[in-house]
Amino acid sequence: VELLWNLFSLQKALEILLEEKEQIIRKALTEEKQVSTKTSAADLVTETDHFVENLIISVLKEKFPSHRFIAEESTAAGSKCVLTDSPTWIIDPVDGTCNFVHRFPTVAVSIGFAVNKELEFGVIYHCTEERLYTGRRGQGAFCNDKRLQVSKETDISKALILTEIGPKRDPATLKLFLGNIERLLKAQAHGVRVIGSSTLALCLLASGAADAYYQFGLHCWDLAAATVIIREAGGTVIDTSGGPLDLMSCRVIAAGTREMAMFIAQEIQTIHYRRDDEN
Amino acid sequence: VELLWNLFSLQKALEILLEEKEQIIRKALTEEKQVSTKTSAADLVTETDHFVENLIISVLKEKFPSHRFIAEESTAAGSKCVLTDSPTWIIDPVDGTCNFVHRFPTVAVSIGFAVNKELEFGVIYHCTEERLYTGRRGQGAFCNDKRLQVSKETDISKALILTEIGPKRDPATLKLFLGNIERLLKAQAHGVRVIGSSTLALCLLASGAADAYYQFGLHCWDLAAATVIIREAGGTVIDTSGGPLDLMSCRVIAAGTREMAMFIAQEIQTIHYRRDDEN
Repeated sequence: VELLWNLFSLQKALEILLEEKEQIIRKALTEEKQVSTKTSAADLVTETDHFVENLIISVLKEKFPSHRFIAEESTAAGSKCVLTDSPTWIIDPVDGTCNFVHRFPTVAVSIGFAVNKELEFGVIYHCTEERLYTGRRGQGAFCNDKRLQVSKETDISKALILTEIGPKRDPATLKLFLGNIERLLKAQAHGVRVIGSSTLALCLLASGAADAYYQFGLHCWDLAAATVIIREAGGTVIDTSGGPLDLMSCRVIAAGTREMAMFIAQEIQTIHYRRDDEN
Repeated sequence: VELLWNLFSLQKALEILLEEKEQIIRKALTEEKQVSTKTSAADLVTETDHFVENLIISVLKEKFPSHRFIAEESTAAGSKCVLTDSPTWIIDPVDGTCNFVHRFPTVAVSIGFAVNKELEFGVIYHCTEERLYTGRRGQGAFCNDKRLQVSKETDISKALILTEIGPKRDPATLKLFLGNIERLLKAQAHGVRVIGSSTLALCLLASGAADAYYQFGLHCWDLAAATVIIREAGGTVIDTSGGPLDLMSCRVIAAGTREMAMFIAQEIQTIHYRRDDEN
């Protein structure tokens, strides 16, 4: 297969790249921003999203001219979002754009890589806390140099749950979104946290700081890197139906244990979003 | 007044104290914990809460034998929680105990100081990110050495809002809690964040990273230090009715602007909690 290149030198290159971007993002965090909206008034994008995405893609394209790219802002601009068997980079240049706009310090860059539709590795950089999360299939997951290990909790009444609101804000969607939180709190979950970045919430799950994460309305670029990291930390990433994860389905449950993931799957109600590859 | 001591040397002492505690808390974050519950299954307490609180109080008592103390775990153990005109230290040894139990890295120590019922200064330490938030009446507010400045946003449709769930989890309370989030999202707030620590949420507000915070069911030790810090960063801290803050009322709205605070006051529905000084 085409995985013969030295992944270590690739990771080094990624780290340098991420450091560069991180400085751009950190600098931009202190500046006034031009904000535009996409699918809803809450779906924001800034110049930095575009700039960082273009930077990542141009560097990777030069190194790997035959590879494909799926990235948030290119997709918003009309690029097809279809995962093929080709080596594919799946990129979110600024995850937590709403946080970023508000200078709320929970913002990340996420880069995942798939071959034959199989996720091979993921790299996520927490831009303000200088934490680099990495995972490579079969090789474990790390935050900086520390090995990540998910929580082993199976009991909802001892669980801390993470979720995110999603871009749709119509009354019916809000009812379902809040109804799902209500169901989990009635099941006596310790608490629910909403931090504004899907990828960083998934990284917290990978590190064992929470017991489950679920969301409707996130995208393949929020999920790709984090999925490898969570699986390599011993966790489960599935579809909200309880079946296998479909990266393009815009919905996910991730948990430290399969029992916890299945409990969430039974408890929550579906919020319908269009698939990433439906266009 | 009794404020003639050198506040700078006091602050130094506090910093050393906080550093010590912070190491205790950081160490404890890596260990298995004995967890007990207080007012509800979600109202947790650990040995570390008790240990840190006793440490702070014993150090301060030795230095200021005539002062009074209001502190979370002493109150839970039956101490009266009444603010008098005496110099009073208002202490939360571990804010974000549920986070702490889950090793979710959003945990703080909060120490406020009041004389004649007026809040004079506040110190909050973010235990994992090594951020020290300080505010002294008339002297500004800082995060480490950086001066804090609240957001000047007045428009809810451009606002990021923070809140916390609170300890009561009965169906009626959950309905009100989620209904309030629904109202703000229907008013087109950019988003709502729930990070699991009232004091750190209030510090984020003070730093301009969010535009408003509201909560029912927090306590005077969650509020005391943060109130000085927010006011010194240019922000507003009021009662959820829109009237002046009552430190013992277990409810608060804080915002960068008075307009934003009043908007939230009109929008949200009251969740009833017993007052801190009602016993």
